Amino acid sequence: MTFFGSRWVEAPSNVTELPTGELPQGFRAAGVACGIKPSGARDLGLLVADHHETTSAARFTRSGTLAAPVLASTERARLDGLRAVVVSSGNANAATGAQGLQDAAEMQAAAAAEAGTPEETVAVASTGVIGVPLPLERVLAGIAAAGGELRFDGADDFAEAIRSTDAFAKRASLEVTLGAGAVRISAQAKGAGMISPDFATLLVFVQSDARLSPATCDLLLGVTVKRSFERITVDGQLSPSDTVILQCSGASGVAIEPETEDELRFGEALDATLRQLALMVVRDGEGARRVGRVLVHGGERETAERVARTVADSPLVKTALYGGDPNWGRIAQAVGMAMPGASPLELGIAIEGVEVCAAGAYVAHDAHALKQAVQGDEVQYEISLPGTGTGAEAELFFSDLGHEYVTINADYTT
Amino acid sequence: MTFFGSRWVEAPSNVTELPTGELPQGFRAAGVACGIKPSGARDLGLLVADHHETTSAARFTRSGTLAAPVLASTERARLDGLRAVVVSSGNANAATGAQGLQDAAEMQAAAAAEAGTPEETVAVASTGVIGVPLPLERVLAGIAAAGGELRFDGADDFAEAIRSTDAFAKRASLEVTLGAGAVRISAQAKGAGMISPDFATLLVFVQSDARLSPATCDLLLGVTVKRSFERITVDGQLSPSDTVILQCSGASGVAIEPETEDELRFGEALDATLRQLALMVVRDGEGARRVGRVLVHGGERETAERVARTVADSPLVKTALYGGDPNWGRIAQAVGMAMPGASPLELGIAIEGVEVCAAGAYVAHDAHALKQAVQGDEVQYEISLPGTGTGAEAELFFSDLGHEYVTINADYTT
Repeated sequence: MTFFGSRWVEAPSNVTELPTGELPQGFRAAGVACGIKPSGARDLGLLVADHHETTSAARFTRSGTLAAPVLASTERARLDGLRAVVVSSGNANAATGAQGLQDAAEMQAAAAAEAGTPEETVAVASTGVIGVPLPLERVLAGIAAAGGELRFDGADDFAEAIRSTDAFAKRASLEVTLGAGAVRISAQAKGAGMISPDFATLLVFVQSDARLSPATCDLLLGVTVKRSFERITVDGQLSPSDTVILQCSGASGVAIEPETEDELRFGEALDATLRQLALMVVRDGEGARRVGRVLVHGGERETAERVARTVADSPLVKTALYGGDPNWGRIAQAVGMAMPGASPLELGIAIEGVEVCAAGAYVAHDAHALKQAVQGDEVQYEISLPGTGTGAEAELFFSDLGHEYVTINADYTT
Repeated sequence: MTFFGSRWVEAPSNVTELPTGELPQGFRAAGVACGIKPSGARDLGLLVADHHETTSAARFTRSGTLAAPVLASTERARLDGLRAVVVSSGNANAATGAQGLQDAAEMQAAAAAEAGTPEETVAVASTGVIGVPLPLERVLAGIAAAGGELRFDGADDFAEAIRSTDAFAKRASLEVTLGAGAVRISAQAKGAGMISPDFATLLVFVQSDARLSPATCDLLLGVTVKRSFERITVDGQLSPSDTVILQCSGASGVAIEPETEDELRFGEALDATLRQLALMVVRDGEGARRVGRVLVHGGERETAERVARTVADSPLVKTALYGGDPNWGRIAQAVGMAMPGASPLELGIAIEGVEVCAAGAYVAHDAHALKQAVQGDEVQYEISLPGTGTGAEAELFFSDLGHEYVTINADYTT
């Protein structure tokens, strides 16, 4: 198994990997270069579900400045019966006003024509620079070209076409063995920067040939997104374009019925898949060297959540993670920032299992061993707050902050 | 005038500069090296007001993990009658538990002995690494040494001794002409990183030989801190050690009475001084190349404030400022993040007076001229929200995020 690379995600025993690029039954995809990206890389993706009984569910950004494609998807499409997804990269079609909305609608119509489905079954997504008009002619030519290249094994091209600043591809192609038979799950994700502490801040497309009702689709997507893309942050920034879509073709003939063992197992596989993809987004993290996991125990539920986010988004914590520096004082600082007025705070901190702070004060420890422990790819921080009996717990994965992030972001538009 | 270097601070006409290092009448200061900093730089400062009618006021961090010196100052001293201030740098004496509290109290007692004042008139402050026990022996030796070096023109040594990661000194020595006579104001500030969006997140000591009641002291400090150190952010991080102290010796014989023209003028001079010092902290900003000013007009008061802070703390906005990149789409993104659910948002954005976004969509503009306009040391961003009639306005100064910040913070403890 090469997909489940993080020690923080357990690969379910009923899941095996398929060759990358293969989609579940009932799906075809393509990715082409249409000229949005100056580099000439693929920048237009089209994904089509051929069966008209395909069910779906979707989640979108909560930004107050929604990008035009998000508005087109949420206002012009039926989110429980999406058949096609059209995605462009290199230009977000955001802050583009009425013209942007019209452009997104034209993408929807063109994709519908290629897919042979009604416009209302097409979702649109775009990622890239904000505030620049979309080069619509090129995009429409790209959609036509992609329509001619739709293939069962086109997932890799599609995954390539939805990338922007991503350093590597984020995709899964898996088989899940259930009581009623085998089903497939594939997924393509895009995200490295503008990854936020709130809802999923990226583009993620998940396909399965299992047969799910729209309600089950929505339930499973909602639960698994909460445990994956809502638990990550790169730079604490909420994108106006975030979109996650799950489509289930039913083409395997295996039905996932509510409250069955198979629903549980399918949900576990989906959960592991999305968590691993989310970790890959953090791992990419626009130049990230290391991934941190912060676990907060105790305190009130909202406090635990705020503490986790404040730690994960602290540039001081993130630069220390980058530097391989076990500077736990910055963790204490971030907790204090998240809990104004709580002093004196009986705070506990452990890094990679080494206790460094208890009852708010440092604990003698082997500094050399601790320094060694934070040199790995993944570093775990555990924070305990007073009132552990409440059972509150918050988990967040975050990237470091290093020179590569600055290099990538200091000169992105020009 | 070399002190008032920012176009955003107007030097009051009744203020002139004095040689740096000189304190107002009634104050003496010193700064020595006691061995906390491995570099051997000055790391222990002592400032004493000789007149026992000296009045004072103070403000402290709102962190939930208060450093021991903050607790010593707030719980063991009378903040309206502070006579002496003892400051160490290189070690924050934070997250150090009961031992840390005892160490801070010992600093207080030692400084009181040197100053010849009661312990309860001594404030303590420390800055530096969090979570490491204070080397008390060295500190006490340093206090004794500083006691022997107290001088009328010791402000520069004191300012030097309170620095940690600061790249340059932040100090003022000014004369203010009032109707009743001339008074002096001097100030020493320390701060570059862990500079927060909430209250003053640094060490600032201000002295005057004007005679102010404790109530006037407190009023003027409160108002001017709100317009200066509460309006800046480097990395959005709240320190457990922030301390601002104003001491007025009265030694000039010039009394500042409430609700007089002189109070207004003195307040204006103090205001300009603190704003310029605050801008110097942002300018230092652990390697900052440029300073941004964001002005938000319109919307509800709390919304305007949240928008300003979200923009100023966005790593995407900050890296663009660093790169001299007029990437206004990131401003739009940050506003959207601060106003979930507000879509469609009739947002306006102008950079250095160039309108780039109106009614939520891009406005055609001279991209080359705009690119040139953001190459300067100071870049201004104006954001207008719907509902301008509310008169709400929020202002924030912020540093960029560049390679130097990463370099400084990726390996600070080791």
